[in-house]
Amino acid sequence: LRIEIVAIGEELLKGRIVNTNAAFLSKQLQIHGYRTLRHTTLPDAGEALSTGLQEALSRSDVVIATGGLGPTLDDGTREVAAEIFGSDFAFNQEVANDLKRRYGERYGAVEDQARLPVKAAILPNSVGSAPGLVFSDLGKTLILLPGVPQEMEPLFSQEVLPLIRRRWPAVHREMTLLSFCLVYESLLDPTLRKLSKEFPSVEVGIYPSAGTLLVSLSGEGTAPFCKALLLAWSSYHYLASTGKIAEALVNLCKGRGESIACAESCTGGRIASFITEIPGASECFLGSLVTYSNPMKCQWLNVREETLSSVGAVSAAVVSEMLAGVFENTSANWGIAVSGIAGPTGGSDEKPIGTIFAAIGRRGENPDVGHFSITGDREKIMTTAAQCLIGALWRKIDKGLPAFPFF
Amino acid sequence: LRIEIVAIGEELLKGRIVNTNAAFLSKQLQIHGYRTLRHTTLPDAGEALSTGLQEALSRSDVVIATGGLGPTLDDGTREVAAEIFGSDFAFNQEVANDLKRRYGERYGAVEDQARLPVKAAILPNSVGSAPGLVFSDLGKTLILLPGVPQEMEPLFSQEVLPLIRRRWPAVHREMTLLSFCLVYESLLDPTLRKLSKEFPSVEVGIYPSAGTLLVSLSGEGTAPFCKALLLAWSSYHYLASTGKIAEALVNLCKGRGESIACAESCTGGRIASFITEIPGASECFLGSLVTYSNPMKCQWLNVREETLSSVGAVSAAVVSEMLAGVFENTSANWGIAVSGIAGPTGGSDEKPIGTIFAAIGRRGENPDVGHFSITGDREKIMTTAAQCLIGALWRKIDKGLPAFPFF
Repeated sequence: LRIEIVAIGEELLKGRIVNTNAAFLSKQLQIHGYRTLRHTTLPDAGEALSTGLQEALSRSDVVIATGGLGPTLDDGTREVAAEIFGSDFAFNQEVANDLKRRYGERYGAVEDQARLPVKAAILPNSVGSAPGLVFSDLGKTLILLPGVPQEMEPLFSQEVLPLIRRRWPAVHREMTLLSFCLVYESLLDPTLRKLSKEFPSVEVGIYPSAGTLLVSLSGEGTAPFCKALLLAWSSYHYLASTGKIAEALVNLCKGRGESIACAESCTGGRIASFITEIPGASECFLGSLVTYSNPMKCQWLNVREETLSSVGAVSAAVVSEMLAGVFENTSANWGIAVSGIAGPTGGSDEKPIGTIFAAIGRRGENPDVGHFSITGDREKIMTTAAQCLIGALWRKIDKGLPAFPFF
Repeated sequence: LRIEIVAIGEELLKGRIVNTNAAFLSKQLQIHGYRTLRHTTLPDAGEALSTGLQEALSRSDVVIATGGLGPTLDDGTREVAAEIFGSDFAFNQEVANDLKRRYGERYGAVEDQARLPVKAAILPNSVGSAPGLVFSDLGKTLILLPGVPQEMEPLFSQEVLPLIRRRWPAVHREMTLLSFCLVYESLLDPTLRKLSKEFPSVEVGIYPSAGTLLVSLSGEGTAPFCKALLLAWSSYHYLASTGKIAEALVNLCKGRGESIACAESCTGGRIASFITEIPGASECFLGSLVTYSNPMKCQWLNVREETLSSVGAVSAAVVSEMLAGVFENTSANWGIAVSGIAGPTGGSDEKPIGTIFAAIGRRGENPDVGHFSITGDREKIMTTAAQCLIGALWRKIDKGLPAFPFF
């Protein structure tokens, strides 16, 4: 079954809003065993909309289009679709009654939504005013849905997906998603290449983000491929429903009653931000001392001025003292301390931009102190450093492995 | 000039990630006077990628494609583009030297990125390993950029946009960009509608992001439109080359020798993160005490346990004590303290999810203490609260206006 998704709206083509509908639809389809061949974004009306929809219909069996169904004059999707399928319009009393019931005295403003193409099947919209429409002819199906996610998503899940599953039952495919931290795409690549030769029918996808990697495996042979991949990289593999390493850390600490605090210099609050993104983080995360200046390192964390002046803020000695300060100033049993050079200035030959020193440890034990380097701009360095250190703490607690080196 | 944007990657067609690149590119193009005709998302390789790119090139003058340039086996964009433009590959020593310098001992894993199509101009990528490529032939231009936003965005702004502006100067339209903080789109809307009637040839774009709004004005009459808009909303208008309110705050404080520190509960480090995103923030930003737990509020900021137990952490009394704690524990002359309910749990009838209390003030003066509410999910609430408070501090320092209410 060939499926394409079309998003309609000038606001998308002007970059005013991000097209989240295409990702929602593709993800739902993928989960239920259907692939999306293409996403297209088209303007609200006119020739370009008509041509774009016809091209999609010529390539695919099913086209799901979102947007442009509203009552205002810049919404032309319904008219263009009716023209393509040679359909007249008629007033639909049932839809009108439903709109009257739900809109009361505001019915006048939405009455036009009951004038519908006679050749289309109607999918009732219980949230907004525009019903979904299904045109089918000569083996081609065009499904029109409203653009507002709050209306589109329930309409898709309750009406469109059951319709597709009834009419085109999916061929079941195994699909496995694996999350890894602390590794680069290029480090995992030789293993993936080797396994791809061994299991040529497994389809592999790699999705890197700052400090973590998501690997997707599907097709015949996924199970042994997955087993071999995990054998080679087990200590980098974490479980998290959102794919976020902070979720793995928070779940781990909540489960074991561990608590975390940190001292952040170059990451400027990003470790705390990533951890607090996870609902329920307050059960294990106490806080972070964002000591972005040297006086704060001394005042909040008892870092000694002599250490700062002798070896500099970006050093093993300073992050060790910062971590000791975390334990002195909190009841946390695990801590992270970090100091580095995020740029764009401040680098030297000895410590170029992207140099990060960190200390990670458990209260009362000798900490792991190490350094690593990240290439990229200021924000990438700060974000990647934060994610890597969350990963290193997760691995140390979960696997008992030293935090450094990462690999 | 007809421009289309193509995003390449199975992860997009599988709905694993949202295509934010298309919105970024269209917004940048729109701001500089270029319209985008269409967005398309295509798979990583093969017939479908080749066909899709050729279709886009047949419709448009310039096609900007993102993604699929990595060193791994699922990245086929470069090969497909070279085939379309009939280009051989050759090893590029200059790119190789740059990769060697930046990747050091990891060079082996990225060496393949120096094998490049000879017919393409090269756009150096200083963040990641894949350079941008520009193919031009028979009046058609195909620009390939990496898919990772941290690499794509600087490459586009520093290399591609200047190239487009040089080669195809936009039909000159006056274009003014105005940044506002602390206002919602719907608050500004009546003013914009009124002015649009008065100056019908001015094209208006509004780009909201968490806590700030960017308004673009172009066409004849922009100057008086702009003047009238600023007259009505001057105290919300800030100047920042990046459009970020934190940049306005950092520049203001650096210029006046002011220093800032904060105490963050519900924003979990996001105020510190946004401020430290600005290069040179260390000249005015001392640090943030991310007191995500009540014991840390007491221990780090001297918040009294009686206050917490009598009125709760999300209260005017607690943020006032937090701000006092900031001044006791730093030498900063300006401070922000914030506590709120980010959800998804923890809301009540009296203090629903999205309720934020904050105190903003200058050392030795009575602080402004207020509360506001934000609708949205956890991350939106945390991010918007942080941006609004940065805006409120900027406005208080710059305009001498009270921090609350925002409007």
